[in-house]
Amino acid sequence: MAKEKVCIIGSGNWGSAIARIAAMNVKDHSDIFEEEITMFVHEEEFDGKPLSSIINEKHENVKYLSGVQLGSNVKAEPDLIKAIKGATALIVVVPHQFVEKVLDGVKDHLAPGARAVSLIKGVKADGGKIYTYPGIISSLLGIRCSALGGANIATEVAKDQFCESTLGVLPEGTKPHGKDSLSDADLWYNLFNRPTFRIRVVSDVDGVALCGSLKNVIALGAGFSDGLGWGSNTKSAIIRIGIMEIKDFCVHFFPKVKSETFLEESCGVADILTSCISGRNRKVAEDMVKTGKGFQELEKEELGGQSLQGPQTAEQLHNFLEARRDEVSRSDGFPLIENVWKICYEGMPPEKLIEGL
Amino acid sequence: MAKEKVCIIGSGNWGSAIARIAAMNVKDHSDIFEEEITMFVHEEEFDGKPLSSIINEKHENVKYLSGVQLGSNVKAEPDLIKAIKGATALIVVVPHQFVEKVLDGVKDHLAPGARAVSLIKGVKADGGKIYTYPGIISSLLGIRCSALGGANIATEVAKDQFCESTLGVLPEGTKPHGKDSLSDADLWYNLFNRPTFRIRVVSDVDGVALCGSLKNVIALGAGFSDGLGWGSNTKSAIIRIGIMEIKDFCVHFFPKVKSETFLEESCGVADILTSCISGRNRKVAEDMVKTGKGFQELEKEELGGQSLQGPQTAEQLHNFLEARRDEVSRSDGFPLIENVWKICYEGMPPEKLIEGL
Repeated sequence: MAKEKVCIIGSGNWGSAIARIAAMNVKDHSDIFEEEITMFVHEEEFDGKPLSSIINEKHENVKYLSGVQLGSNVKAEPDLIKAIKGATALIVVVPHQFVEKVLDGVKDHLAPGARAVSLIKGVKADGGKIYTYPGIISSLLGIRCSALGGANIATEVAKDQFCESTLGVLPEGTKPHGKDSLSDADLWYNLFNRPTFRIRVVSDVDGVALCGSLKNVIALGAGFSDGLGWGSNTKSAIIRIGIMEIKDFCVHFFPKVKSETFLEESCGVADILTSCISGRNRKVAEDMVKTGKGFQELEKEELGGQSLQGPQTAEQLHNFLEARRDEVSRSDGFPLIENVWKICYEGMPPEKLIEGL
Repeated sequence: MAKEKVCIIGSGNWGSAIARIAAMNVKDHSDIFEEEITMFVHEEEFDGKPLSSIINEKHENVKYLSGVQLGSNVKAEPDLIKAIKGATALIVVVPHQFVEKVLDGVKDHLAPGARAVSLIKGVKADGGKIYTYPGIISSLLGIRCSALGGANIATEVAKDQFCESTLGVLPEGTKPHGKDSLSDADLWYNLFNRPTFRIRVVSDVDGVALCGSLKNVIALGAGFSDGLGWGSNTKSAIIRIGIMEIKDFCVHFFPKVKSETFLEESCGVADILTSCISGRNRKVAEDMVKTGKGFQELEKEELGGQSLQGPQTAEQLHNFLEARRDEVSRSDGFPLIENVWKICYEGMPPEKLIEGL
C-alpha cells in the first residue's frame, strides 16, 4: 500500500496548530504516512522576509502561532500547485471566504486517490440555499471530503492541553481508493488523534461543518446576556435554547444530519460551550451592550477590521429563513436566531433577546 | 372542582425563592388555587425572635433569602401538621438528609387527593441501590410525586432573571383524583410557570431528580480543571464527557429514564453548565487544587461546616459501581466519575483527572 502524503492548505492560527499535530502523527504512523508534510502558505512579508522562508528556517509560524515549534518535517510552500504535488491527504483550513478562490484550478493537479478534510468554520448561503464547505470542496475538487471540528482553541491545542475533536466522515461502502486502502475514518483518525487531542468519529460530515458555523450565533446571544449583567441561569438557558435551535434548524433543512452530533459531540455541545465562555463573538457582543456600539465599529476597534463570523452567520440564517419560511414547521420558529439577527442588524435593544423564547 | 391548596415543606434559600413564584401564580390562577400558601418553617431564632413570626410580619425570609418579598399570601408555619392541613399540592424542598425525618408520620394527616413535587437535590444510596427522592417521598406519603429541577440559582430566580426549569411527571393515564381533576403536569405547570421562569414538562421524574444530584460530580471535575489553569477546550471536554457519563449511568441503571432529559432539558445540560460555571462545588474543587487542602477542610473554612454535595455523590456513585460492577457494560466504565472520586477520597493528584477519559 502506497503511503499517504499530507498537504495542509492554509497556515493561519488553526492551520499551524493542526500542522504540528499532523507532523507528530505522520512520524508516529510512519507505516501509513510519508514523513514530510507540505503546508501551503499564502505568501506575505514578515520582518522584511517572506513568511514561508521564516517558517522553513525556524519551524515556527512567527506571525500566526508564535512560540510554537511545528516540527521540522513541515515544509512551507507558497505555490499551491507545488504544495499539493503528490498529496493524497489534503487538509483544507483557509478562511471560508477564500476557499473557492484558493481551490480554483487545483482539481487538474491532484494526485490520484486524493481525499480532503475540511477544517473550515462557516457556511455559504445564497438566499434559500445553504452549502457546507465539505460539500463545496468535494464539488470543486471532485474528491471525497470529511470534516473536523470541536472545542479547539488553537493556542490551547498548541500547548497540548487536553481536548476532543469530532471527525465527520461520509458513509462507508464507497471506497474510491481500492478495497485495500484506508477508510476515510482511519486515514484522518490516524493523522489527527493524539493523547491530548482525542478524535471521536461520527458518520455526519454536514453536522460537524454546520455546528462550527452556527455556534457563533449562540455565542453572540451569550455575550449579550453577559453584557447585560444577567446571571448564569439566564446564560445557561440561552445556551440550551441555542443548542436546540441550531440542532432543529439543521435536522430540518439537512435531513441527513444527526441530532447526536449537536447534543453529544465535541463539535456540538462542547464547542458551543467554549464559544459562549471565551470566544471572540461572545466578547464583541458583550462590548456591544456595554458601549452601545454596533458590531461593525467593534470589528474595526477590536479585531483590526477582521469580520466577525457570528453576525454574518445570523444574517445568512435570517435570509435563509425568510426565503423558506413556508417550510418552517417548528411551532415557534427560531426566536433566538432571529433575535440575535435583529439586535445586530435592526437596532433591537439587547434586553429583548429573551422575547419569544 | 375544589381548589388546590399549596403547602411548601421547607423554607431555605430555594424553598423561599419558589414560595415567591408560587405566591404570584396562585393569585394569577385563582380559579385553580386557594390564595393562601403555607410554608413549613423549621423553627429557629433570628435576632432573638422566631424566624416564622418574622416571615409572617415582614413577608421576607430574613435568614435565607433576605431582601426579597415572598408575598403576603405566604404564611409561615412551624408546625408541619398544621402547615399541611387541607393541602393538596405539597412542594417538598428540605435538604435531602432530612426528608425522611421531616416526613415521618405525615402520611396520616394528608388531605384526600394530595400530590407532591420534589425540588430536592441529592439521591439516597445504599451500596448497590440508589433511590431518588420523588420515589422516596411517594413511598413515605403514599401519593404521586413529580420533580422540578433546572439551572435555577435561587438568588437569580428571586430577581426574576430569565431562566428555565424542567418538570418531570409520571406517565398520564392513572389519575387518582377523579377524571375531572388537573393532570400532574397542569397542576405544577400552573403553580410554577412564569414569564421569567419557564417550565418545560417531560415524562421523566427520575431523570429530573438524578440530573440535579449527579451534576455536582461534573462540577467538581470542572473546578479541578479551573484550579489547574487548564483552558476552555479542556473544561468543555470535561463537561461534555461528564454529561455523557451521567446520562449513560442513569439510562443504564434506571431503564425508564430518558436520554433527552440530560441532553436537551434545563435540568440536564443547562443545570450542569451553571454548576460548572458558578456553583460552589466548582469553587471548592478549584480551591482544593490551589491550596492543596482536602474538601473536608474547605467545607469548614468556606461553607461554615455545611457538607458539599459533590464529594458525597461521587462516593455514592463509586460504591454503587463497586457493588454492581458486573453490570457495567460501558466499554470504558465511568472514568470521569471514578477520577473525581479518587481525587476527593484517595489522594489522586488532580492532574490525573483526564486519565482514561
